[in-house]
Amino acid sequence: MTVPEELRVRAGAGTRDYPVLLGAGARLSLGGVTADWAPSVRRWAVVTDDRVGPLYVEEVEAGIQATVPSGPRVIIPEGEGEKTRARWGWVTDRLLESGLGRDGGIIALGGGVVGDLAGFVGATYMRGIPVVQVPTSLLAMIDASVGGKTGVDTPAGKNLVGAFHPPAAVVVDPEVIGSLPVAQRRYGLAEALKHGAILDAAYGQEIADSAPALLAAEPGPLLRVVRRSVQLKSRVVSQDEKEAGLREILNFGHTVAHALEHASDYSIPHGAAVAMGMVWEARIGEGEGVTRPGTSERLAEWLAAVGLPTDPPVVDRERFVKGLGRDKKVRSGMPRLVLLDRCGQVAPSSDGSWARAVPVERIVARGPWS
Amino acid sequence: MTVPEELRVRAGAGTRDYPVLLGAGARLSLGGVTADWAPSVRRWAVVTDDRVGPLYVEEVEAGIQATVPSGPRVIIPEGEGEKTRARWGWVTDRLLESGLGRDGGIIALGGGVVGDLAGFVGATYMRGIPVVQVPTSLLAMIDASVGGKTGVDTPAGKNLVGAFHPPAAVVVDPEVIGSLPVAQRRYGLAEALKHGAILDAAYGQEIADSAPALLAAEPGPLLRVVRRSVQLKSRVVSQDEKEAGLREILNFGHTVAHALEHASDYSIPHGAAVAMGMVWEARIGEGEGVTRPGTSERLAEWLAAVGLPTDPPVVDRERFVKGLGRDKKVRSGMPRLVLLDRCGQVAPSSDGSWARAVPVERIVARGPWS
Repeated sequence: MTVPEELRVRAGAGTRDYPVLLGAGARLSLGGVTADWAPSVRRWAVVTDDRVGPLYVEEVEAGIQATVPSGPRVIIPEGEGEKTRARWGWVTDRLLESGLGRDGGIIALGGGVVGDLAGFVGATYMRGIPVVQVPTSLLAMIDASVGGKTGVDTPAGKNLVGAFHPPAAVVVDPEVIGSLPVAQRRYGLAEALKHGAILDAAYGQEIADSAPALLAAEPGPLLRVVRRSVQLKSRVVSQDEKEAGLREILNFGHTVAHALEHASDYSIPHGAAVAMGMVWEARIGEGEGVTRPGTSERLAEWLAAVGLPTDPPVVDRERFVKGLGRDKKVRSGMPRLVLLDRCGQVAPSSDGSWARAVPVERIVARGPWS
Repeated sequence: MTVPEELRVRAGAGTRDYPVLLGAGARLSLGGVTADWAPSVRRWAVVTDDRVGPLYVEEVEAGIQATVPSGPRVIIPEGEGEKTRARWGWVTDRLLESGLGRDGGIIALGGGVVGDLAGFVGATYMRGIPVVQVPTSLLAMIDASVGGKTGVDTPAGKNLVGAFHPPAAVVVDPEVIGSLPVAQRRYGLAEALKHGAILDAAYGQEIADSAPALLAAEPGPLLRVVRRSVQLKSRVVSQDEKEAGLREILNFGHTVAHALEHASDYSIPHGAAVAMGMVWEARIGEGEGVTRPGTSERLAEWLAAVGLPTDPPVVDRERFVKGLGRDKKVRSGMPRLVLLDRCGQVAPSSDGSWARAVPVERIVARGPWS
């Protein structure tokens, strides 16, 4: 196994850098990572779920034990429905029972749910202990690597309770991606293609061109995608400290996507909704005269190459409009959209921000009802 | 009403300064405070309990409304038993129901329980919103003003779940202290006398000399105590960033106090246990030849002057020893005590730290059984 490649990431103003370590087989060498990046930790707990846990937890613990004892193993049921305060309390209690102290740490081994939940446990366990993220889905590798967001859902909505708790380190091992369904990989690629759409057209094209290898879960091409997306996203987040609001461009496609999810009662998976939302918002941009003609078509080609949907189903129009209104970026009743100039470039708004108000009817007009 | 006096406090390395605003009647001018120290907040929720809430919540809300709308009012039952995850979730849900958003803030109006609980709600509400602490007990004024610690208890122990979330500001109004029972004031004075014992003998003597005025809840003398204790404690906390471990001196009296509380099944109130623990630990220091003879006697005089107990009741010896072992400062089986050189001065240990290992039998030997 080769030494993992290291990217440095910053979660935001006033926080420390942390490393994202990328390498095929990196999951096997957690001991070195924890010794380097969280040397004060005397005992590591592993939090995982019952889908990926059985596949990797023993290898991961064996790696840790090369350096310090691994402590309790806490396994939650797989699924979005587990991202709750109740499950957070339950995991916390299992760690307390095990005697894990202030000198303990948490390895979060799993997809987005495990990362967000175990991250929030770590953020609040005895007022915060180190967390090493070992994401196992492509989306979690890109998402969990940059930002430091942790949290759980409540009946009132998603991610309403949580904390910023940047990881001590993130370990990205593309070998684990192959064990998850190909649909999950596609949703991760939707996020990566978004980075291409707003920041780097060549990257978007590269993803489309290497779609067969990516869908076949070849570690090399997957690693290139995670590396590039982490670089692009972390650049946006760190520039946002100086250029307030730049982060907003990461919402491209998401205003429509959230409304679609809402209107479909969340039967459309998030990754698919983002894919359709990006094409829809690109068409809106073309209609507004902001986005160059042909942009939505090129974007749709990229998405289709990796097997993502680009044309939304007809959903209830009223519920869709209601979903637009729920978006947190709504100001004075008008949704605010990030519009492209062309593939790889966002069009800044005349007021210097990165999103612009678009009347609801002009959003609806580009939908499947017309 | 005069303009409140401002002290600047830092909760720890890598965090921003915040102001502690002291003044008789300061509770009435929250609008100015929030505008100055949390200008981005568009709506303030007040979290309080059913003991102090009815006395002050309307005045506090009226003050806020001078600047921005006050939002929901959330009232919890009074008592230590309310510092739970369940109550934290309940308060969070009330705020979510009210529509309080990312641009909201929380006023924590109450004693230690309200401050810790509402602080933790603020730390985790949409990944953190500003909290202004308005402590109503003397102990909370001193404790909540410095440190930024928030959290709740679990069945496994106190304060095991929480977060660092320094307040946007702390507003100390000595006028509110008079409405609480005198016993509570005494427990606050135990904490203040601890600051005298470890850092400033003249301050300890001043408290003893002005005991009648303090117990009568005269705002002027109370304000002097809060001011001086906040100054002393914040100096320790900020020096701790350079001189790791200095913070430990704040544990003076607490090792024995925790064991006493444990052995009495928490029937001894914390403030009383700290008072007895300080005298006991001073006697240990004298026995070890570390503390000047007469120190424990002088300390006992200060404590007696404000009506605090100095001689512990006989508790179960085995449970006391067990309680000593539970202390988080135990290393290789020996409790670590902070010992005084004399009143106003801690004796550094030969290894450069501020606590030293003392065998259990020598601790027990100074207890009420001998």
